[in-house]
Amino acid sequence: MKESDEFSILQKYFKNLGSQFLDSSGILIGPGDDAGLFKTSNEDLIFSTDVSHSDIHFPKKLDPELIAYRACSVAASDIAACGGALKWLSISLVTPSKELSWLAKFAKGIKLFTKDYRVPVLGGDLSRGKECSVSVGVCGEVKKKYFLSRSGAKLGDSIYVSGFLGFSRIGLEIVKSKKNNLSAKEKRYKKKYLKPKVNLSLGQELRKIANSCIDISDGLIGDLGHICEQSKVGAEIDIELIPYEGTYKNALTWGDDYELCFTVPKSKEKKIKIIEDKLKMKLYKIGEIIKINNIRIKKGDSHLKMSQKSYNHFK
Amino acid sequence: MKESDEFSILQKYFKNLGSQFLDSSGILIGPGDDAGLFKTSNEDLIFSTDVSHSDIHFPKKLDPELIAYRACSVAASDIAACGGALKWLSISLVTPSKELSWLAKFAKGIKLFTKDYRVPVLGGDLSRGKECSVSVGVCGEVKKKYFLSRSGAKLGDSIYVSGFLGFSRIGLEIVKSKKNNLSAKEKRYKKKYLKPKVNLSLGQELRKIANSCIDISDGLIGDLGHICEQSKVGAEIDIELIPYEGTYKNALTWGDDYELCFTVPKSKEKKIKIIEDKLKMKLYKIGEIIKINNIRIKKGDSHLKMSQKSYNHFK
Repeated sequence: MKESDEFSILQKYFKNLGSQFLDSSGILIGPGDDAGLFKTSNEDLIFSTDVSHSDIHFPKKLDPELIAYRACSVAASDIAACGGALKWLSISLVTPSKELSWLAKFAKGIKLFTKDYRVPVLGGDLSRGKECSVSVGVCGEVKKKYFLSRSGAKLGDSIYVSGFLGFSRIGLEIVKSKKNNLSAKEKRYKKKYLKPKVNLSLGQELRKIANSCIDISDGLIGDLGHICEQSKVGAEIDIELIPYEGTYKNALTWGDDYELCFTVPKSKEKKIKIIEDKLKMKLYKIGEIIKINNIRIKKGDSHLKMSQKSYNHFK
Repeated sequence: MKESDEFSILQKYFKNLGSQFLDSSGILIGPGDDAGLFKTSNEDLIFSTDVSHSDIHFPKKLDPELIAYRACSVAASDIAACGGALKWLSISLVTPSKELSWLAKFAKGIKLFTKDYRVPVLGGDLSRGKECSVSVGVCGEVKKKYFLSRSGAKLGDSIYVSGFLGFSRIGLEIVKSKKNNLSAKEKRYKKKYLKPKVNLSLGQELRKIANSCIDISDGLIGDLGHICEQSKVGAEIDIELIPYEGTYKNALTWGDDYELCFTVPKSKEKKIKIIEDKLKMKLYKIGEIIKINNIRIKKGDSHLKMSQKSYNHFK
């Protein structure tokens, strides 16, 4: 099969993904050379990379279009968490599939993402392997003074999340079950798992008011834990204020929702309403940064005890 | 095993790799947050990503320190081929190993590379998987007018390579054989496979005189073929001018040497000697860009015929 030559594959399926956004993203030379070349502006740049691996981050048999789209969303979510604007993507794919139709579907998923988020692909690489693994590099722009870090939370900050937790966990079960005839609610759960919304607009609003921010990839407790550790503070959150579906344990320790968790000083909280109106979304205040050395989960007058903090595939 | 928590691993082994070069590379926020943040200068930026996969790009049982070092070299070679200066690395690792000692050795290999090439690690990601796969992102700096592309070769250009071909192929055989008591020559072959020199200084000299450039990752014929295709020219190379060891077939179609192949207009060829003296290395003129639609390999008065053009793991 002559077409299965790696270079031809790259040329055929991966060369022009999001190429209509090359100019607006300052790309001078896109895929096809040894490296991609891009202009810089007055902004500083951010870069992050995220691996999505079969049977760990997605079910092995998932439609390649969805594998690709989801891998891009998950990676781009880090740019949102830092308050950045997305500039370009880079895709490293390891795949066991020799089927050109598999690669075409995978490329279609990338293309859909580039259209939805108006961002080009700068380059990538492709290798054969026994398991599918997608490493997506994402570059974004943000001025240093607006960079939303994990380490800026201050005592007294209010803690917020950008949406319901637990949807993705239920969505993943639906995907695995291969159930058909889904209810409207089930479709929403499934979509949340497969195409989690990347909160780029929200991140760019928050960078003016939030002291810290993280995207919830591994579970609220674990990810808020990173903010607390790196900010050297503690947190109290109220289970009755947290928007979630499914069990509270899954909602608190399972990631995949890619909502943002952020902290805002009380003096800037009045801006929350303005952002909610502008972006037509609801933000949920779930607790406060306090002076303890862990995370306390309030439930009525008592506290919940949780053994598992977050998803960990190295356990 | 508490230490095997992914975040702890990242903190312990991967956080400070090359951190002494963060400032000189303009890194404002390094590993540990959702994304790394870096300053830009007047230069344009280049980015490339390269996957090294076990049993395809390196033997499965290779020392993790060498897997890591080699993966960085291979990726950084693309920056050299574009005439860039290396700015930072990003490492995505998929590994089957749960051994902390494996991860420690892998991190040591990265660290060695950062020291040898005076470059920091901006960030990375880590995932469990059945096979080891390393995707290295590399960022470099070069002004657009100096970017060495594959598409700039002109009729009449002389074709050069930066060193001997075939060493890595012999070196790989030595690595696989696990032979001890190596001769000085065998050690050289082995080193060339395990730690191919990244021709960054050469690339930065060539960008002032070369019309096109590529690093030989998949074999001279295949990679020079990319230059010819993208420049819409042909090439004649003379087997008796090509520096190689082992069989000519391996030397022409096997990659892994990461020498640069570049074309220089006759008007600028006198600069070659100056570069050779400055960098204390020899550059080899092997042929000329001509008006045919393929690559002709001269051997005395006849031409060689070759069926396999380059290494292709998708065949």
